[in-house]
Amino acid sequence: MLHFDQIVQLIADDLGAVEAKLTEQTASEYSFVDMAVQHVVEGGGKRLRPILVVLSAKACGYEGPDAHTLAAVVELIHVASLVHDDVLDEASIRRGRETLQTKWGNKVAVLVGDYLHARVLAMLVSRRADDPAMEILADTTQAMCEGEVIHAYKSGDFDITVEEYLKIISFKTGKLIAASCTLGAHLGITDERQIAALTTYGQQIGTAFQIIDDLLDFVEAPEKLGKNAFGDLREGKLTFPIIAARSRCDDVEKAKLEHVLNPHTDEAEAIAFVQSLFQRYDVEPHCLTVAQTYADYAKAALAALPHSSARTALEQLADYVVSRDA
Amino acid sequence: MLHFDQIVQLIADDLGAVEAKLTEQTASEYSFVDMAVQHVVEGGGKRLRPILVVLSAKACGYEGPDAHTLAAVVELIHVASLVHDDVLDEASIRRGRETLQTKWGNKVAVLVGDYLHARVLAMLVSRRADDPAMEILADTTQAMCEGEVIHAYKSGDFDITVEEYLKIISFKTGKLIAASCTLGAHLGITDERQIAALTTYGQQIGTAFQIIDDLLDFVEAPEKLGKNAFGDLREGKLTFPIIAARSRCDDVEKAKLEHVLNPHTDEAEAIAFVQSLFQRYDVEPHCLTVAQTYADYAKAALAALPHSSARTALEQLADYVVSRDA
Repeated sequence: MLHFDQIVQLIADDLGAVEAKLTEQTASEYSFVDMAVQHVVEGGGKRLRPILVVLSAKACGYEGPDAHTLAAVVELIHVASLVHDDVLDEASIRRGRETLQTKWGNKVAVLVGDYLHARVLAMLVSRRADDPAMEILADTTQAMCEGEVIHAYKSGDFDITVEEYLKIISFKTGKLIAASCTLGAHLGITDERQIAALTTYGQQIGTAFQIIDDLLDFVEAPEKLGKNAFGDLREGKLTFPIIAARSRCDDVEKAKLEHVLNPHTDEAEAIAFVQSLFQRYDVEPHCLTVAQTYADYAKAALAALPHSSARTALEQLADYVVSRDA
Repeated sequence: MLHFDQIVQLIADDLGAVEAKLTEQTASEYSFVDMAVQHVVEGGGKRLRPILVVLSAKACGYEGPDAHTLAAVVELIHVASLVHDDVLDEASIRRGRETLQTKWGNKVAVLVGDYLHARVLAMLVSRRADDPAMEILADTTQAMCEGEVIHAYKSGDFDITVEEYLKIISFKTGKLIAASCTLGAHLGITDERQIAALTTYGQQIGTAFQIIDDLLDFVEAPEKLGKNAFGDLREGKLTFPIIAARSRCDDVEKAKLEHVLNPHTDEAEAIAFVQSLFQRYDVEPHCLTVAQTYADYAKAALAALPHSSARTALEQLADYVVSRDA
């Protein structure tokens, strides 16, 4: 079985080219803009979306620079959304580095997000006229916003169901991961059935990815996360593990859960209660099972594609998304 | 001389079509997104940028629905920037209505701005392949962001010069107003000299517009402004009137000005001192003179275009930008 590092190794040259594109395409003639943008773009992360563009393209028989450009585009959309999320969540640390608003204030951070979107538009403009990328990404960015708005609006709604939450994350997280696969596929083939298979794959691992992301916030050490642990809980954010736990709670536990999700509640008390609930209702194994179900569905979708080392890597990547610890 | 209302009357049918486009193109299947977006899109404003697209197109001999689409696009970019500005300025009122973050919180407000950008991308995608709009707007949104980032970064810099500030506003405000004119012109003609004349016109009235906007914050009643008076001053924001006043101050006055721009200084004291400075150095007439100079330069640029009622309206609009009281 390929581990994540081996998958990265398999496409190391491509990922190097993507990094070069990212640096080149976000350069501003204003040194301050440049510095702020590089702070977030070079902040790292797993580059999951670029990896998906490159592997999807390869799985569909394409090799070349277009995959690097589109990989850079989806990564910039992703980074822009993180920058805005951090502002709104008032996060101080991301990927082990200070966030933009901690370094330079909210205004700079929101605007750097906007700047990255402007650069994405500029990169798409320079592509050929029959390129489907623009349309795919227009739909994607709209769906991401809709998902985020609904999530923000629902944030005070304690009664959100698992199904409603899954719908929201399919928009917030799944759409861009799916688009990464779709864009890569389009570079290599025109067979709609195969392209749709990769879109489905991306959508499903996107959901798995977010469920695990939500879980890690509760169970992983902050050094590994590169951000503060229990961040979602402290903000009173309802994420998958809490919503899943709540669906099993009795009325007394539900009332207590509502109490500990109030940001004014003592943090140690909140964490202790949530951990006890997680124990009682096997929340961690439940999250892993649900995420693995999505990953398995994603892998099954890949059967529509011919065998290749890239397809194998995509299969392994689906499992990695569930088994990762950061 | 045409007054603003008469200019609007002249193109009332076009502006009605633009409003219809704005409503149609920002509709979301999610009723909450829809409500939040309509709150800001229908919040009114003068629709200066749509007026400029329509008049520029007419001045170049074009009549038709493309002008309405592009007018809606530039207005949405503008509204998105206002929504983000309000979040960052923590403004509670805009155009006489509660701002989004007052009604629904920061997160909804930042995301609605992002949603509007996503809609802009979707509207541009649906246009023909040889359309220069996308490239023009990619450059424009990037420049707007750069201007905003630099302004935010410079906001603590008391030594900003008039020239530096004019450069910033030419990016923040001037670029989109110029683009409105350029886009309209492109619909009607291919003569680069005439298109450049309209771009110059837009850039110049954009600067005039911002200088007057800055001035009105100090001299106009809040009922007319549709927002709180002295808002910039209270935030310690350095805008044209203050920067111009400071350039005439002696060292004692400079020290005092720095003191009153500190948000911790008593507001009544700050306002009284700034008003005394404005009196002593004739700041209001100075701002009007500088703005009129830009407006005159804008009008002169229009000489490259054939005579038409639209060109006359553009000339009058340049004067209106300076003489307006809200």
